Amino acid sequence: MYEIQLINKYFSRLSRKNKSSLNLNDDVFFDKSKNLVVSIDTYVEGIHFIDFKKPHLVIKKIIRSSISDIICKGVKPKYYFISGSGNKKSFSSTNLKKISRSLKQEQDKYNIFLCGGDTVYSNKLSFTVTSIGFSPKIIFRNKAKLNDDIYVTGNLGDSFVGLKVLKKKININKSLNRYFENKYYLPNLHLKLSNSLLNFANTSIDISDGLITDLDKLINKQKLSYKLNLNSVPISMYLKKLLIQKKLNKMSYISKGDDYQILFTANSSKSRIINKTAKSLGIKISKIGKICSNLQKSQITDQKGNKIAVKTKGYSHRF
Amino acid sequence: MYEIQLINKYFSRLSRKNKSSLNLNDDVFFDKSKNLVVSIDTYVEGIHFIDFKKPHLVIKKIIRSSISDIICKGVKPKYYFISGSGNKKSFSSTNLKKISRSLKQEQDKYNIFLCGGDTVYSNKLSFTVTSIGFSPKIIFRNKAKLNDDIYVTGNLGDSFVGLKVLKKKININKSLNRYFENKYYLPNLHLKLSNSLLNFANTSIDISDGLITDLDKLINKQKLSYKLNLNSVPISMYLKKLLIQKKLNKMSYISKGDDYQILFTANSSKSRIINKTAKSLGIKISKIGKICSNLQKSQITDQKGNKIAVKTKGYSHRF
Repeated sequence: MYEIQLINKYFSRLSRKNKSSLNLNDDVFFDKSKNLVVSIDTYVEGIHFIDFKKPHLVIKKIIRSSISDIICKGVKPKYYFISGSGNKKSFSSTNLKKISRSLKQEQDKYNIFLCGGDTVYSNKLSFTVTSIGFSPKIIFRNKAKLNDDIYVTGNLGDSFVGLKVLKKKININKSLNRYFENKYYLPNLHLKLSNSLLNFANTSIDISDGLITDLDKLINKQKLSYKLNLNSVPISMYLKKLLIQKKLNKMSYISKGDDYQILFTANSSKSRIINKTAKSLGIKISKIGKICSNLQKSQITDQKGNKIAVKTKGYSHRF
Repeated sequence: MYEIQLINKYFSRLSRKNKSSLNLNDDVFFDKSKNLVVSIDTYVEGIHFIDFKKPHLVIKKIIRSSISDIICKGVKPKYYFISGSGNKKSFSSTNLKKISRSLKQEQDKYNIFLCGGDTVYSNKLSFTVTSIGFSPKIIFRNKAKLNDDIYVTGNLGDSFVGLKVLKKKININKSLNRYFENKYYLPNLHLKLSNSLLNFANTSIDISDGLITDLDKLINKQKLSYKLNLNSVPISMYLKKLLIQKKLNKMSYISKGDDYQILFTANSSKSRIINKTAKSLGIKISKIGKICSNLQKSQITDQKGNKIAVKTKGYSHRF
């Protein structure tokens, strides 16, 4: 059973009475009466991060992954809680120093503060991060409108290459290996964009599980479909070179997740303000497709306009 | 290194800038500007609960343990998030049904709602529960006054007997085994007392790690000591009988934790209102000692007035 089915089957009924909740079908919980926005995620060694050989990078990645959920909803995170389960080795004083230093750097970068947490003994290393922000409104999932343009920030796919480098499944050269590894560990969040997003995005999500999986999630309760133009999906010049050099398939690189870019839709009338915002904030924002009626199936076309079968979906927990 | 040292050494500096936080030295985080009260705890199989053979009871225990942190601060919990890591067996559909049913029962009992969470795959079963309440004020730790009376709600020790029964280290009879097991799994929280507490308690904590350990924690940053009267520490008639029958030592039964009773101090002038409140709410509240100056050492005396050496402290995570 996939996580989404599990939630719908067993847990949705537990939240229904509470109208301010999102029925567990969104990235964050929003209590409108209190302006409260909460995101909770658990990260397990071997699943969400390979190992703990680089604690300073792992910690940065999980903090960013957590606050990314809040930022993509148009909200600035205010503080966070971190709960760690691990053994003596994971929480050695060397590692604790690294963890503490990394957290401090993330705090300064994103203007957030540690407010509590818990440390417990376990042979399996995992972290649960709770991030909290405050806002009178947020951008929900499942609020796309027919004919909306689909946008994405930054570049996709670099993080997946980084993971392959780390797993020694690909080897480029020292400096590019390093570039991609950093993209895996240190996703570039667009904190400055968060407030502006509220002005133009109808619906939004951050790409953690993969472009196609997250786009499906974004509109999964709506009677809509999408058309994506693979050619418009933004990738870095390094990934572009790599795809050509190694004859790799672009589709399979941009749909594997861990990108933490923001995927959103907006009315076509907003295209000017979106471009203006992107320019003034120095953030790359690309138009990659369109929201269509469900009379047609969702489709992805390549540069020649040919339809591409989507084989490579992203990540979903299965029990 | 103990958890408290670990927090002080590596993490306190990360929260200092945020004045509304409790410097990570309290059971909850309180953001006064937002009236927000947050508690986060992680529960690991084999440490915080023996196993997952009785999922419906384990789930109830961890929910109660989590909201207990908020209730003991004088605040009603409003909602909670639960993040579970486990495998196919732990999250089988039979277990999920039980978990869901238990959560519903706790929601009805304590008027709380599930607002989100996360399920991830892991061979090690653990849960992280985040509970949230709202209040313009809370009762802090380290606010005891010299000569305050020390109070505790309910009875202590039953839960520890329950744990011994479950671990097959003690066997009484079928119905008493059941009684103590239930006390272990289903601590009786005093939700009704929470608001009244604000009227008389100077400082408070819930007993999770043991009477002595938690009393030490309650005033660990104050230049104060305490005198406890062992005879006044409340235990159930079942535990009383057991202690006599098996010639067991009372001290070692009341200081092992998992009681989730509220330990608080109050000015002696409040004694009438405390008794009145206890009576009107039908909650047992016992005066068990006094806060003293630190010119004398903390001490515990038995019914004859003899000092007792404290050997059996409660639980503390060590890394």
